[in-house]
Amino acid sequence: MAANVDTGGGSLLLAWQLKDKRVLIVGGGDVASGRVESVLAADALITIISPDEGLHPLTKRYIKSSDRIIYHDRVFAGLGDLVAVDMVLTAVDDVEKSREICDMCRALRIPVNVADIPSSCDFYFGSQIRDGPLQIMISTNGKSPKLANIIKKKIELSLPFNAGEAIKKVGELRTRLKERAPGVGGDVGRRRMRWMVDLCTSWEMDDLAMLDDEMIKKLLDDGWENNRVPKMEDVGGKQTRTAIGMHWMSDALVLPALGFLAGAACTAFVLQRPHP
Amino acid sequence: MAANVDTGGGSLLLAWQLKDKRVLIVGGGDVASGRVESVLAADALITIISPDEGLHPLTKRYIKSSDRIIYHDRVFAGLGDLVAVDMVLTAVDDVEKSREICDMCRALRIPVNVADIPSSCDFYFGSQIRDGPLQIMISTNGKSPKLANIIKKKIELSLPFNAGEAIKKVGELRTRLKERAPGVGGDVGRRRMRWMVDLCTSWEMDDLAMLDDEMIKKLLDDGWENNRVPKMEDVGGKQTRTAIGMHWMSDALVLPALGFLAGAACTAFVLQRPHP
Repeated sequence: MAANVDTGGGSLLLAWQLKDKRVLIVGGGDVASGRVESVLAADALITIISPDEGLHPLTKRYIKSSDRIIYHDRVFAGLGDLVAVDMVLTAVDDVEKSREICDMCRALRIPVNVADIPSSCDFYFGSQIRDGPLQIMISTNGKSPKLANIIKKKIELSLPFNAGEAIKKVGELRTRLKERAPGVGGDVGRRRMRWMVDLCTSWEMDDLAMLDDEMIKKLLDDGWENNRVPKMEDVGGKQTRTAIGMHWMSDALVLPALGFLAGAACTAFVLQRPHP
Repeated sequence: MAANVDTGGGSLLLAWQLKDKRVLIVGGGDVASGRVESVLAADALITIISPDEGLHPLTKRYIKSSDRIIYHDRVFAGLGDLVAVDMVLTAVDDVEKSREICDMCRALRIPVNVADIPSSCDFYFGSQIRDGPLQIMISTNGKSPKLANIIKKKIELSLPFNAGEAIKKVGELRTRLKERAPGVGGDVGRRRMRWMVDLCTSWEMDDLAMLDDEMIKKLLDDGWENNRVPKMEDVGGKQTRTAIGMHWMSDALVLPALGFLAGAACTAFVLQRPHP
């Protein structure tokens, strides 16, 4: 943690909360359909304004299948469309219209994103990965959406299998711990945080993903109450195959080691063959 | 791209734009110092309100070294402190005070984050990675900050070396291309996007990172104008060592292959030794 102040030029990456908030999407093409997907994932209530002939098949499918979407088959009609709206996303080809909508939003302090016009955006989107409660965004600050996408694919391959499930289970444990030892901040908050950190660093991700109701109860009874972090076996957990087999070597070593064995075997086979 | 509408429960991940916007940070402890770092990275103008005795050494260093920070040695004084403020982040131990500030912000439609009180947050923070224009956020939707941090470290190890530099260079090329073939959306926008995608998928990340002024000019003259993507050598680029040596095999194969060779060599050495 260095106090480095020479690293400007970026954005502030955020996880915006939209549960039951009203999001207006102006436009219905392929960009708009991507917006609908992102916003639905955050449990928003959506209004789409777009003439029917401009609807992408995917947008149509969303409108048909989600009861969180209200659809108006028309163009944006002005200030009246912005009443009680919490966020506006536009994705239409009309640059003038887009800028007008942006100006209205800013006057009303409604956060707005205008596709393809960075100066009319309070925020940008990025490439996203989702695995249950785990969400990852890759932003190139508008410099190269394609490279963001390539990097996203590399990250997807490197993510621990079960990461989403492990996070879900740890979240449940954390909720139960807060019920048992409530309070915001202060000494109890710090002790809670330390205990959770100790658990997450001493257990494998695979093992955390295996947590069930009974194990969580034992963790709290035997672990939290005695201010220690039990091993997985001590709370009734069975180690997963990955955890047993490869505990002693990091993932990065498995493939080279297999390569070594294969090389040794082939060479032995060739050299030990009886000479003709 | 499936129209999957059963994946709620998440957030909308965003890259918020703060260049020259006013951000108020209430509090000066270690959490606040992290906020200062994130917000400075986005070129915001910061006001910190916190009694001097509550300042973390890192917060003090930021206040001393950055001319973008105004510091007030006192507690939050009410509505007057929110005039012309674009975002508010609080990180103080006083829960009642925090909730009050949150209510004021919401009445004024100022986006607000109250550390440790999710219900008083319009947005959450996550673990972050930064490499020049590349920014990555890992959010567990508040379920496990520690696991977010562990996953962040795994991702850092898996990121292509030079990713930030490649993005910077591609961003420059994109700007020059937009000057040469201007216009928002429409046919030219689509052609630009397709050409950039072709380039980013056919060149290695290492090679993109080597782009210089002259190569960019040649790419545009020979490539864009003739509607094709030249190879790196054709625009005067020299292939990097990684690109030459390992072009023909993916990164994932290098280590096992080296392991194979080592295994073969060791076995040959043992088996070919003269018998005693």
